[in-house]
Amino acid sequence: MTYTFSAGLAPLTGTATRDIFKLLTRPEIISFAGGLPAGDCLPVDAIREITGEIFADPGRSLKCLQYGATEGYPGLRELIIPLAEDLGITGIGADNVLMVSGGGQGLDLLCKAFCNPGDAVLVEDPTFLGFLPTAQSYSARTIGVRPGQGGLDLEDLERKLKEYHPKLVYCIPNFSNPTGKTYTVENRAAVTDLAEKYDTIVIEDDPYGRLRFAGEPVPVMKSFDKADRVAYVSSFSKTVSPGLRLGFVIAHRDIIRKLAIGKQGADLHSSNLTQLIIKTYLEKGYFFPNIEKSLPIYRKRRNAMIEALDRYMPEEFTHTNPEGGLFIWGEFDAAIDTAEIFNAAIARNVAYIQGNVFFAANPPVNAIRLNYSNEDPERIEAGIRVLGEVFKEKIALSRPGNRM
Amino acid sequence: MTYTFSAGLAPLTGTATRDIFKLLTRPEIISFAGGLPAGDCLPVDAIREITGEIFADPGRSLKCLQYGATEGYPGLRELIIPLAEDLGITGIGADNVLMVSGGGQGLDLLCKAFCNPGDAVLVEDPTFLGFLPTAQSYSARTIGVRPGQGGLDLEDLERKLKEYHPKLVYCIPNFSNPTGKTYTVENRAAVTDLAEKYDTIVIEDDPYGRLRFAGEPVPVMKSFDKADRVAYVSSFSKTVSPGLRLGFVIAHRDIIRKLAIGKQGADLHSSNLTQLIIKTYLEKGYFFPNIEKSLPIYRKRRNAMIEALDRYMPEEFTHTNPEGGLFIWGEFDAAIDTAEIFNAAIARNVAYIQGNVFFAANPPVNAIRLNYSNEDPERIEAGIRVLGEVFKEKIALSRPGNRM
Repeated sequence: MTYTFSAGLAPLTGTATRDIFKLLTRPEIISFAGGLPAGDCLPVDAIREITGEIFADPGRSLKCLQYGATEGYPGLRELIIPLAEDLGITGIGADNVLMVSGGGQGLDLLCKAFCNPGDAVLVEDPTFLGFLPTAQSYSARTIGVRPGQGGLDLEDLERKLKEYHPKLVYCIPNFSNPTGKTYTVENRAAVTDLAEKYDTIVIEDDPYGRLRFAGEPVPVMKSFDKADRVAYVSSFSKTVSPGLRLGFVIAHRDIIRKLAIGKQGADLHSSNLTQLIIKTYLEKGYFFPNIEKSLPIYRKRRNAMIEALDRYMPEEFTHTNPEGGLFIWGEFDAAIDTAEIFNAAIARNVAYIQGNVFFAANPPVNAIRLNYSNEDPERIEAGIRVLGEVFKEKIALSRPGNRM
Repeated sequence: MTYTFSAGLAPLTGTATRDIFKLLTRPEIISFAGGLPAGDCLPVDAIREITGEIFADPGRSLKCLQYGATEGYPGLRELIIPLAEDLGITGIGADNVLMVSGGGQGLDLLCKAFCNPGDAVLVEDPTFLGFLPTAQSYSARTIGVRPGQGGLDLEDLERKLKEYHPKLVYCIPNFSNPTGKTYTVENRAAVTDLAEKYDTIVIEDDPYGRLRFAGEPVPVMKSFDKADRVAYVSSFSKTVSPGLRLGFVIAHRDIIRKLAIGKQGADLHSSNLTQLIIKTYLEKGYFFPNIEKSLPIYRKRRNAMIEALDRYMPEEFTHTNPEGGLFIWGEFDAAIDTAEIFNAAIARNVAYIQGNVFFAANPPVNAIRLNYSNEDPERIEAGIRVLGEVFKEKIALSRPGNRM
C-alpha cells in the first residue's frame, strides 16, 4: 500500500544524522557526532531528591499527574522571568512566556504560527540541521544567509530581506550549532533593527548561551528588541536535562497566545511531572550551581579537543575555537569530501558529522562538525588522533602523484 | 504591533472551553465541564515507587535524563504490542508503533502527515472539540458526518467520501467524546471497508476504550483493517495519568516512519522520564489492576449522574447512557439555548459544556455535554439538582404565557 503524504512531509525522509545516531549505540565508538550534554553534568542527585519530595506530598503528586494548563505549570512561567532578566530581557511578565516541550517545540510552533506554504525563512548558513526540516514541514522555503565577521553578513541579510520578504529569520547568536561562533553586540543590534525595518520576526534560538566557559557574556538579541520583533527560544536541555524535554519561548504576548493555541493542538501541555521537577529545581536554587559545576568540564573537553586537533589534524585543517557551547567547526583547505571519509572513520570507531547537512543551500563538502561535550578528554585525544590519521591518509592519496 | 499569522493559525482564537476552564479553578464550582479522570484513579503510590526505583539506579537515571530516540524509549514500543493484541490488533511489531506526547500529538501528526491546505477531513458530528482546531491549523476543512444507528450514518459517510475525497476520517468508536456512544461491530467493519473503497485513512481515536464498566467489549476498528487504512491512536491519559502526557499510534510502518519524521521536528521525543515511568508501570503489571480498580468508581459516578438526571431534569430532556468512558450527552426537546443558560448555571456554581462547540457544521443550540468522572456521587447529585432547577426555570419562563 502506498500512502500519499502532505506536501510538507512527503519530501522529508529523515535526516542523514538519524541513521548515524543508530550506529552510535555501540560503546566502542568515540562519538563527536551528537550534541549530548556530558553525563557528569546531569543533576541526577538533585532530581532524585526532587521526585522523592514531589511524591511524598499527596497534593503535588495528584496535581502533576492530572491535566494542566497549556501555558505552563502554575508558577513556573513566573520563575522564567528572573532567568530572562539575568540575560538582559526586561519588562516581561508571565504572559510573555510559554513553556514548551523542548526548545525544538518552540521552533516548530513559531513556524506553524507564521509560515504559509511557499513563504521564505532565512537561516544562517550553516545552521542547526533540525530547523531546516521543521520549516520545510510547513512548506516554507529555507534561504541561507552568509555568515560575516561577528555574526550574520548584514549586507547579505538585507539583500535577502528585500528579495524574499521572509516571515522568519532564524539564528543562534550564542555558540552556534554547528560552528560554535558567537555574534557581537553590534551584529545583534543590527539584525534586530533590520527585522523591524523589513517587518519580519527573528527567532533567537539560545540553547547554549549559559554554557560560556571563556570570554565575556554578550546580551541576548531579545534585549535589543524595542519593536517586539524577536521571539527568544531556550531550553533546559543543555543546563539541566534533555531527556525531560522542557524549554520556553519569550515573546510579545500576542505571539505567546497564538503559540499556545498551536500548542494546545500539538500536545495540550508539556509533562506536568517534568515541569514540576524543573520548577522545584529552580526554587531550590540548583540551576546556577549546576551550570558552575559543568563549565570546567566543558572547558576541559574543549581544550582537549583543540589541543588534539592542533597536534593531529593535517595542516590543511582549520577550526573554530568556541568560548562556550558544545561544538567546533572544521574545514579543509583541500579537496576533501567529509561525507566520503565518514565510513573510514567509523571503521576505526570514530564518528563526526559531515558539514554539508547544515546548509540550506550550496553545501561545501570539506567541512565537519565536532562535538566535544559527551566524551572525556582521554577519548577525545584518542579519537582526534584517529581522525588525523584517517584524513592525512586521504589527503596523501588524493595528491596527484598518489592517485591509484 | 500587529502580527500577521499563518492562514492555519490566524483564524484560531482559542476554544470557548479554554476560558471556561479558567473559571473552574474555584473549588466551590461543581464541574461537569472537563474531561479529567478521577483523582482516586491516578496511581500515585505506584508512580512514587517507580520513580524511587528509577533514581536509585544510576544507569536508568542517566539514561532517562539524556536525549533519547524519537520513536520511543528502548523497549517501550514492544510493550505496546500485547496491549494492542488484547484489543484484537494482531500481526504488528515495534515498527508499527510510535510513542507520542499524549494522544493529541498523534492526531496532530496525522493531520500534518496527510493534509494539504484545503483538503477535507470528515468527522462525526458531534466530535472531540480539540480535533477541529488541530485539523484547521493545517488549513484542512472539517466536514461533519451524521451519526446513525450504532455508529456513523453509512449513507451520509459514503456520500461525503464521494463528494469531498477526504484525506482523513476521524472517529471515536468507543464511548465517544462528547456523546458517550459506541459503534457496533458491523459499523466498524463497514467504515473500514469504505475507507479502503474510497482510498482514505481512518483515525481511530480510542482514549476511553479501556474504561468499559458495563456491556460487552467490541473489537477496535483497527482489528478489521486488512488494507492498512486505519491509524489507531490511544493514550495513557485516562488509564494511568494525563499529566504525564504519553500516548501511542499504531499504523502501517510507512505511516509510523512519516509520523516519526514529523515528531522529530515537533518535540524530538517524548519525555524519557515519563516513558520510563510508563514502561516500568507496564512491566510491573500495574496497568490492568489499576483499571479494574477504577471501573467501579466510574460506574458509580455514571449511575449517580443518570439517576440525578432522571430525577431532576425537566421532562423535555433526554440523555445517552454510556457503558464506559467519561461523558453523557443530553438534548432538550425545547427551545433551550444551552450557551445562554451557562451563566445562570455558573452563578449557582455548576459548570457544563454547551453542545454546539462539538460540531463541524450546523451546531444545535439545545445540547450539553456532561462529564461525570471528576466529581464524587454526592456532588454529582447536588450539581444536577441545581442544573435541573436552572433549566426548569428557563423552560417555564420561555413558555408563551410566561414571557416577560
